[in-house]
Amino acid sequence: MTTSFPMNAGDGLYSYSKNSHFQKEIIDGVKEMVRDAIIRKLDIKTILSSSNTLRITELGCSVGPNTFSSMQHIVEALKDKYLYQDQVIDSTKSILEFQIFFNDQVTNDFNTLFQSLPVDRSYYASGVPGSFYDRLFPSRSIHFLHSSCAINWFSKLPKELLDEKSPAWNKGRIHYVGASNVEIVNAYVAQFEKDMEMFFNARAEEIVPGGMMVLVTPFSGYVRLLGFFGSSLMDMVNEEKLDESLVDSFNLPLYYPSPQDMTKVVEKNGLFSIE
Amino acid sequence: MTTSFPMNAGDGLYSYSKNSHFQKEIIDGVKEMVRDAIIRKLDIKTILSSSNTLRITELGCSVGPNTFSSMQHIVEALKDKYLYQDQVIDSTKSILEFQIFFNDQVTNDFNTLFQSLPVDRSYYASGVPGSFYDRLFPSRSIHFLHSSCAINWFSKLPKELLDEKSPAWNKGRIHYVGASNVEIVNAYVAQFEKDMEMFFNARAEEIVPGGMMVLVTPFSGYVRLLGFFGSSLMDMVNEEKLDESLVDSFNLPLYYPSPQDMTKVVEKNGLFSIE
Repeated sequence: MTTSFPMNAGDGLYSYSKNSHFQKEIIDGVKEMVRDAIIRKLDIKTILSSSNTLRITELGCSVGPNTFSSMQHIVEALKDKYLYQDQVIDSTKSILEFQIFFNDQVTNDFNTLFQSLPVDRSYYASGVPGSFYDRLFPSRSIHFLHSSCAINWFSKLPKELLDEKSPAWNKGRIHYVGASNVEIVNAYVAQFEKDMEMFFNARAEEIVPGGMMVLVTPFSGYVRLLGFFGSSLMDMVNEEKLDESLVDSFNLPLYYPSPQDMTKVVEKNGLFSIE
Repeated sequence: MTTSFPMNAGDGLYSYSKNSHFQKEIIDGVKEMVRDAIIRKLDIKTILSSSNTLRITELGCSVGPNTFSSMQHIVEALKDKYLYQDQVIDSTKSILEFQIFFNDQVTNDFNTLFQSLPVDRSYYASGVPGSFYDRLFPSRSIHFLHSSCAINWFSKLPKELLDEKSPAWNKGRIHYVGASNVEIVNAYVAQFEKDMEMFFNARAEEIVPGGMMVLVTPFSGYVRLLGFFGSSLMDMVNEEKLDESLVDSFNLPLYYPSPQDMTKVVEKNGLFSIE
């Protein structure tokens, strides 16, 4: 069971599609790293086996437009790698086809996503509704996985944060930022590790041997913003503009793993390399 | 280019999901024929080749619930065929996985479709937006195709029906039912044949060799209803409740092929059998 936190639907003033510049900067920032990893490390000939179709997924795609830019970039890098893999252009090679699975939670606005698909796209598009902490695809069916600013969202909020009797009770805050007792941060870290185990177990079945997974998650700066947001809410409580219980009920199921956190979950789940 | 005629969205009073009993009866009526065709004719072992995943598509799925009932029925028949293909139950057989691609036009209400997916389904679900008169899937990627009450919708209305200068001008009617001049029916038949050629050309690339395609389309009774509907509109024109130009602009891009029509397009497009 997962709790659902989709991005805001549609394309209005407060929609994700109009308020995701920060996420766009992150995607742009890693584009060259992703391309480089594809060119240097992916053995497309081997992972393709008998078919000419590369199946790609974007986990936590939201409604666009960022996901379309990422996917286009990845398709181009994969095409280049395929064409130049053997240092020569082989004109007898059959044409590569791409099938992209845009995944997000069931309550995501797929209607907006589908109606925003680029008309000149060079891939077959499909949408896959469901939590990426569960299985989403048949066994060994995905060649390339991309996920940006998504695995930092938990499958659910650790319930002890809302439990007055727990040492991890997070009174007067919406996040672990600024929490004085270590139990609160520990509750977040434990949930992150549990979620990542579910995530990697599902993906281990779904990705073909030799396939590639790119997980992008922000840390540092963004966390400070959440601290400001939480203390602004508490200011409103102090000015009696907001009831304190509302703040307490509003803990964010959101964790920004440090590079050390990522290394730990990656090694724990038997994966080989991290950059 | 296709013009879009999705079924009514959501699950309100006038939605497709609350107004599709007629389509349900048609699906129920052919269920046993579909099962029988799978059991007698489909060679699952051969079409699966190296994978254990059967990929199924429903073209023109709308928003449910009919599509879920059809897909569940087909999955069960395929499972039975797989398990008993060699007359013995082989416990060493690996488990079959199913991936279903629910297709409809880009403007279909996929949000309602996804939120109505059966929780206990035994398949991986995905949605594919786009007209089935174009390509939708990679080459040789679909094992089983089902489409019910959908191919009777044209990709577009034959434009001569709305052209005052054409002998096929369909003044005062919304359909070919009751049309006195043969040019009108001919315009419908020609569009149907052109559309079916596009349909079969796309599917010929997408379906694996040995795969199966089930196309269900209503005829007879339904056509009479459209005649009644059209003449009701003309009654309103005669009572001056409706402007005649509205009726003329409202020709339905809908054709109910007779069994002879179907035989003709199937043979013309090089397919083998029709039942």
